[in-house]
Amino acid sequence: MPKVSKKSHQLPLSPIRKLSGHAEVTKSKGIKVLHLNIGQPDMAAPRIALDAVENHTLELLPYGPTQGSLSFRSKLCSYYSTYGIHILPEEIMITTGASEAFSLCMNVIFDVKDEIIVPEPFYANYNGFAAVSNVSVIPVVSHFHHQFKLPSISEIKTKITPKTRAILICNPSNPTGYVYSKHEIEQLGNLAVEHDIFLLVDEVYREFIFGDKTHYSVLANPDWKAHAVMIDSVSKRYSLCGARIGCIVSRNREFMNALIKYGDLRLSPPTLAQIAAEAALDTPEQYIQEAVAEYAKRKDTLIHAMEKIPGVQISRPVGAFFCIAKLPVTNAEDFCRFLLTDFEYQGETVMLAPACGFYATPGQGVDEVRVSLTLNSRTLGRAAVIIQKALWAYQN
Amino acid sequence: MPKVSKKSHQLPLSPIRKLSGHAEVTKSKGIKVLHLNIGQPDMAAPRIALDAVENHTLELLPYGPTQGSLSFRSKLCSYYSTYGIHILPEEIMITTGASEAFSLCMNVIFDVKDEIIVPEPFYANYNGFAAVSNVSVIPVVSHFHHQFKLPSISEIKTKITPKTRAILICNPSNPTGYVYSKHEIEQLGNLAVEHDIFLLVDEVYREFIFGDKTHYSVLANPDWKAHAVMIDSVSKRYSLCGARIGCIVSRNREFMNALIKYGDLRLSPPTLAQIAAEAALDTPEQYIQEAVAEYAKRKDTLIHAMEKIPGVQISRPVGAFFCIAKLPVTNAEDFCRFLLTDFEYQGETVMLAPACGFYATPGQGVDEVRVSLTLNSRTLGRAAVIIQKALWAYQN
Repeated sequence: MPKVSKKSHQLPLSPIRKLSGHAEVTKSKGIKVLHLNIGQPDMAAPRIALDAVENHTLELLPYGPTQGSLSFRSKLCSYYSTYGIHILPEEIMITTGASEAFSLCMNVIFDVKDEIIVPEPFYANYNGFAAVSNVSVIPVVSHFHHQFKLPSISEIKTKITPKTRAILICNPSNPTGYVYSKHEIEQLGNLAVEHDIFLLVDEVYREFIFGDKTHYSVLANPDWKAHAVMIDSVSKRYSLCGARIGCIVSRNREFMNALIKYGDLRLSPPTLAQIAAEAALDTPEQYIQEAVAEYAKRKDTLIHAMEKIPGVQISRPVGAFFCIAKLPVTNAEDFCRFLLTDFEYQGETVMLAPACGFYATPGQGVDEVRVSLTLNSRTLGRAAVIIQKALWAYQN
Repeated sequence: MPKVSKKSHQLPLSPIRKLSGHAEVTKSKGIKVLHLNIGQPDMAAPRIALDAVENHTLELLPYGPTQGSLSFRSKLCSYYSTYGIHILPEEIMITTGASEAFSLCMNVIFDVKDEIIVPEPFYANYNGFAAVSNVSVIPVVSHFHHQFKLPSISEIKTKITPKTRAILICNPSNPTGYVYSKHEIEQLGNLAVEHDIFLLVDEVYREFIFGDKTHYSVLANPDWKAHAVMIDSVSKRYSLCGARIGCIVSRNREFMNALIKYGDLRLSPPTLAQIAAEAALDTPEQYIQEAVAEYAKRKDTLIHAMEKIPGVQISRPVGAFFCIAKLPVTNAEDFCRFLLTDFEYQGETVMLAPACGFYATPGQGVDEVRVSLTLNSRTLGRAAVIIQKALWAYQN
């Protein structure tokens, strides 16, 4: 039998994929699985986006422009300007989700064995995108007890080598919920300029911030024009995960020209999805406000319920829709498997994402799980009860 | 300014992108450009596909399955069975166009510096997909005067090294229109088995065959179960280029499992486009029959008109919708540029794809162009007149 590539063998399985087989078996036994593992909003997509697709008047469905539809990009410029970010349509490349945005950025920036510095824990698929492009992820640990704030700049500096081509953060962060301050972003921006490397910021959770903290975009400071690259998506903001529309924004011409070369290879982003995404930009502000208020309520419910469990600690996210919980176990991945294979409480169990998959350093986060706020408060409360019972059963 | 990757500098520009700037300038002068360079069908998409999107009843647009919707994959199985190809839904991975299918296959099969053997001329983007994955394209020349039939197996054998991981063909071929015989496919299949490498066949033009020749799929022979990989797309078949839906089909379990790991990284293919593509499978056969009849008519018109031009030779395609023309010039790329920058006839000019971009061997195809049949017969006739006038002007 012909062999698949070594790269394929080495590609890390996502923390969720590792457990999904068990979840299927559990379900087949008639046990209900509460999915606290997923990052998909449970809110309905704005009606205006789905209606735009229903009302399309297309006769042909030709390839669109490599960079994405001009009307959509122009409208994105207006959207960004409401955040004080002033960019031009030619500084935007529409992508098939933020996922394609990462793949393309990997190709544009990195050669084989180049390095990317990422504070950990980070979105697990960053590991995969880097592995696909033979890029080395150089992690810098951020700490649970500091709510995962940016590690010190001096520590990050020690990781910079001649192979370093970029620093990557997610702001607000999946999986930690940390929202980087203007000061932290400025430190990173200046560091990128000083070492002439890219600063890549995944801002897909821009609007999801609890309380008064404001989001400071990597595009806010025009001094970093050559260095700043922003990745975005409509998936979380408008519950349009299945549309698969994201984008890359950069004021660096050489970067954009290289991006277009790779974009040409895949011809164009999906047209129907762009229609939905463009229309979604007209969604009344109230939609996001209500979503954020709902996530805030769920977060409070979850924190309250989880903190009652002996030995459990839970983070205080300021943004996105995840918490990190520290459990009184030595191997959270094993506990997550136990929940699916050996436990049920009143016909239900819980699926959690083991946090070790969000770290690159072996041994980090082994007692942590990521808990998603994409289920309603009542379900989250019930999930906490199940986790408590399961911890007791697991420990005994 | 931070540098983009060396890979980005080395990535070949598509033959069309090289000229598209000139075409824009030409248009801005009020000169009409007849686009004989593009591979996008001008037929309307089947109404049934566009209606399915209009009539969607989605409330949510969540991530779909990594492999694509099960109902769509099941229906694809029925479609393939009408061609005597019997496969299971789990042997299919839906992709964001055939483009993503190629990117994924590159990752699954190849490590850095591995080799892929491809008869040239070939679809220009194969060069790009290989370059992105640091894979070496090893071309084997097929010849204009033999209508680009498969080079001899003994010649292909001489190209096999320990680094060879796959042979790739496009059947029917873009850009040559050649349709490989059952005998040729069998020779390749047996060669793949003998050397334990993959045989990758791009079959996106399956239905586009003029005359009685029948298409022989790489999946037809179950003996090559471990070695055969087929790439497909709804773009050409149903004029759904902008949907961005393709697929990869393989009976090799290890291959499919690796594919799913890469697929997980990009979460899922676009949902709305899958709705259109699934509905398109119900298109009455007449739709394709009429399209093929129309392309056959255009092909005859074009061949007839081009052969009247002194010094021009034109291929006799049996499938797809392209011809290769040999022009009485030493540098067809320069002539294509001339058409856009220094020529017009009655307010019109022609954009052609220089064929050198479809070869990997420097110096091959320098006097050839690819001519697309995606404009109607009258326009193709007019284009031939313009080409004749331009050749005269260019030579004098």
